Amino acid sequence: MLGGTGEEGFGLALRWAIAGYEVVIGSRNPDRAAEAARTIAQSAGRPVRVSGLSNENAVSQADVIVVTVPFAALIDTLRIVKPKFRAGQVLVNVSVPLETAVGGRATRTVGVWAGSAGELAASVVPNTVSVVTAFNNVSAELLKDPSKPVDCDVLVCADDENAKKIVLDLVGSIGGSRGFDAGALENSRTIEQITALLVLLNIRYKIKSAGVRITGISRVS
Amino acid sequence: MLGGTGEEGFGLALRWAIAGYEVVIGSRNPDRAAEAARTIAQSAGRPVRVSGLSNENAVSQADVIVVTVPFAALIDTLRIVKPKFRAGQVLVNVSVPLETAVGGRATRTVGVWAGSAGELAASVVPNTVSVVTAFNNVSAELLKDPSKPVDCDVLVCADDENAKKIVLDLVGSIGGSRGFDAGALENSRTIEQITALLVLLNIRYKIKSAGVRITGISRVS
Repeated sequence: MLGGTGEEGFGLALRWAIAGYEVVIGSRNPDRAAEAARTIAQSAGRPVRVSGLSNENAVSQADVIVVTVPFAALIDTLRIVKPKFRAGQVLVNVSVPLETAVGGRATRTVGVWAGSAGELAASVVPNTVSVVTAFNNVSAELLKDPSKPVDCDVLVCADDENAKKIVLDLVGSIGGSRGFDAGALENSRTIEQITALLVLLNIRYKIKSAGVRITGISRVS
Repeated sequence: MLGGTGEEGFGLALRWAIAGYEVVIGSRNPDRAAEAARTIAQSAGRPVRVSGLSNENAVSQADVIVVTVPFAALIDTLRIVKPKFRAGQVLVNVSVPLETAVGGRATRTVGVWAGSAGELAASVVPNTVSVVTAFNNVSAELLKDPSKPVDCDVLVCADDENAKKIVLDLVGSIGGSRGFDAGALENSRTIEQITALLVLLNIRYKIKSAGVRITGISRVS
């Protein structure tokens, strides 16, 4: 979990730790990562495998790397850990190019030359790493209480079908959430925009956890 | 209903006719409009008020104009009827800039200089007409059988709050669907992209009517 000390990273790490995955929290500051790992272990309410390391060491250890840093930190975060990537790893980008990255509103996105943050991430990491877009629409609020099923579906897109399958399984381990195969990585453009729309609905309806469900499809992953 | 002879126009017109609204089907060809009106009256299964006219005459008669033409025909359609608009009318744009407009895929959109088809429509019609984006994500398949509740929410955005309220009421008249206030007209950009994503899910999951529901909000319009 790169950016595992933030709210979204915390929520995802907590859910996966409870599901039985071994989770490594990454941070620029290993002490903060270790502290976040302890908080997760306490919140889990059962024995879990979670540790905290530097972002670089977290990437070295993991099979699946999930990046939840704010968009303004995405490129730097990936560049710093780039030498640590191994062929065959999966990178899940959760970061969304909200306008807040340049001092604007979280209800809007900024245009990204690559098309989306997911595609941008793919352009930064080695091309032997498969990039997947997922979890962008699931608010930290929905994830933080593991006793509650997550009332939000996860749209998953990637150019590598095997990597997509791995991430769809990760979605399935989070109670309540259903994963949908949303095609090629370029569809990150739409999935990321939905996040800004959900922020807008949160503000307009004075709630904290607007989400999205896909209807009309009975076959879910 | 400009483009009321198409599938989406048919479905919306049918639902509103059944809800008790007086519906005027517009078409370039008034004979085709009249034929579509007869089909709607027959499909309604009860007495309804529906007639067919040229697009120009339909615009003259209506309080709310709904445009469901393919994106490639949007500008021409609006330009032709432009002299017929009256101040205070509401224009609901359902048209989405799918790549099919230029021979591409319905799973993608083309970039629109104005930002979205909704904003483009607003740039074409007189500025005394309030433009609202709505219904873009509801497939014709979901609308065509009036005995079935529509399992899809409607994201409604506009710069004119009164016009938005009128359209949210129109959503409420379609059984099953819930309308959500999605802010300013610029958010059409996201709402329209969702349509392409739903087309992709239809293809990938071999279904016909993928839709979207918003979760986490109990207060609906």
